[in-house]
Amino acid sequence: MLTDLFTPSVQYSLDIAGIFVFAISGALLAVRKNFDVFGMAVLASVTALGGGLFRDVMIGDLPPTAFTDLGYFVTPLVATVLVFFLHPEVERITRAVGVFDAAGLGLFCVAGTTKAYDYGLGLTSSAALGLATAVGGGVLRDVLANEIPSLLRWDRDLYAVPAMVGAVTTALLIRFDALDATTSALAATMAFTVRLLAMHFGWRAPRAWNRRSTATEEM
Amino acid sequence: MLTDLFTPSVQYSLDIAGIFVFAISGALLAVRKNFDVFGMAVLASVTALGGGLFRDVMIGDLPPTAFTDLGYFVTPLVATVLVFFLHPEVERITRAVGVFDAAGLGLFCVAGTTKAYDYGLGLTSSAALGLATAVGGGVLRDVLANEIPSLLRWDRDLYAVPAMVGAVTTALLIRFDALDATTSALAATMAFTVRLLAMHFGWRAPRAWNRRSTATEEM
Amino acid sequence: MLTDLFTPSVQYSLDIAGIFVFAISGALLAVRKNFDVFGMAVLASVTALGGGLFRDVMIGDLPPTAFTDLGYFVTPLVATVLVFFLHPEVERITRAVGVFDAAGLGLFCVAGTTKAYDYGLGLTSSAALGLATAVGGGVLRDVLANEIPSLLRWDRDLYAVPAMVGAVTTALLIRFDALDATTSALAATMAFTVRLLAMHFGWRAPRAWNRRSTATEEM
Repeated sequence: MLTDLFTPSVQYSLDIAGIFVFAISGALLAVRKNFDVFGMAVLASVTALGGGLFRDVMIGDLPPTAFTDLGYFVTPLVATVLVFFLHPEVERITRAVGVFDAAGLGLFCVAGTTKAYDYGLGLTSSAALGLATAVGGGVLRDVLANEIPSLLRWDRDLYAVPAMVGAVTTALLIRFDALDATTSALAATMAFTVRLLAMHFGWRAPRAWNRRSTATEEM
Repeated sequence: MLTDLFTPSVQYSLDIAGIFVFAISGALLAVRKNFDVFGMAVLASVTALGGGLFRDVMIGDLPPTAFTDLGYFVTPLVATVLVFFLHPEVERITRAVGVFDAAGLGLFCVAGTTKAYDYGLGLTSSAALGLATAVGGGVLRDVLANEIPSLLRWDRDLYAVPAMVGAVTTALLIRFDALDATTSALAATMAFTVRLLAMHFGWRAPRAWNRRSTATEEM
Repeated sequence: MLTDLFTPSVQYSLDIAGIFVFAISGALLAVRKNFDVFGMAVLASVTALGGGLFRDVMIGDLPPTAFTDLGYFVTPLVATVLVFFLHPEVERITRAVGVFDAAGLGLFCVAGTTKAYDYGLGLTSSAALGLATAVGGGVLRDVLANEIPSLLRWDRDLYAVPAMVGAVTTALLIRFDALDATTSALAATMAFTVRLLAMHFGWRAPRAWNRRSTATEEM
């Protein structure tokens, strides 16, 4: 199976790393929203595991890995404890979290696409589920925090596009039978880099055509 | 199977038509909320496919049709592109969208009820899932846009009732072994008509008893 | 199976009782948010059935019990009708609803843990799903009502902790092969009692470390 590309322990470490960085971003939003420690744990877990849960439900892999592997379950709790005790001023850490979150984005869009394809979905659907795996947790995080998902807002740097780049690249690699440990690492790195560039240069996506004339602050 | 009532291509066209009109309504809300083009695509897809995804997960039809048929996936994107370039002033189009949305409501409550029954659910549960199929996407759309679902608000015209009319009629037709292409078209038309009437006459549902005395603006 | 601990009719009555009290809490929030009668029915159903639906999807028990048993479906509607006609001033009933809700919390965390374990999940995951069963409906209720889930807010009395106490106790009882009708009733009662105490004494959970110095109103 494609998911055996890496030795299990490498694949697993990458998964856990992605879960950890997403959990950090969830726990930090919880701090900013003034939630208590249980709210932090819930938001960390939802952010870290939400995208994968959605993908696993869609492909019918039930119970989802998050409920069969203790590491998936414990990692968000560890992230919560860390943020609870050590979180420096939120402002100072935000930049670092952005980088970690970009890493999670890269890892998840590749892993999500690969797993969906392994379960028999077509290439397009697999890429779509890879995208959903990468961005789903963040959307759930924002919904629970009662905010408009930053994924949807035009005044946020590109987030869906880097994940799409990674997912589509992975699908193309599968299509041309070229997916191996190296190329999938490259796909993840590509998504990661595009996201970093989007953050650095403030890349944004356009809004609907007719809005442009009236919205002078844009473009 | 009941879902074979229509020739596949007719059934499929109706499905795609329903998805298309719901996607338009999602993309238009995204424009109103000032989302970027990716936010539009996400909101269009969620609105169009959300109800069906929920139904398919509940009946255990995994992966859901939305992930196995490219047409389901591409239609919301086409709707997004259309809205992106062509959307006239939102105000002007709202009326037409309401009519299209009513058509989607009619199509989905019948199709949802029929599919749930095909998967072995009882008549009541099938009608409930038909209702959920019809209104679920709109609820998800509003949740993602951080608004109270218009389904729940008393100051909106009846929306659940038309879908219930269509779903219950379909269940009764199944019960009396009278569901065929003509009668299910009739059930969809009935839901469509009730919704149009509710919009035209501003029909609303009552709120809880004790509220009435204090809420003079109602009834 | 563990779920056969009780005679079916006792187990079933407990389930229905839990659904009923949660539905009351959903319908009452709908009244407070000024929803119409259909919004009340939707919010009551989501609150009462949401946690169990999530658990059933996760463990792959599809279609979920809520769609195969009429009692699960009708109970929230009965609760809606009751609240619609009889709800006294919302303020007066709030206390009683809190007690009923605590009872639902106790019943659901035990039932959820037991069912998840029956479907082959590990003890930790079973307890996590028991917790999710107990609190999931309330989270969905608050999301649909466009409020920050009270589960997450630091200024609300402990809610997750009582459910965790019940779920973990149940898992430990399973672990030591000591789960029977009496002990699982005890676990539910324990969760119920902890919740009542939290409400009575206003127990709250701490927020992140660095917040404490600046947030003088806490502790």
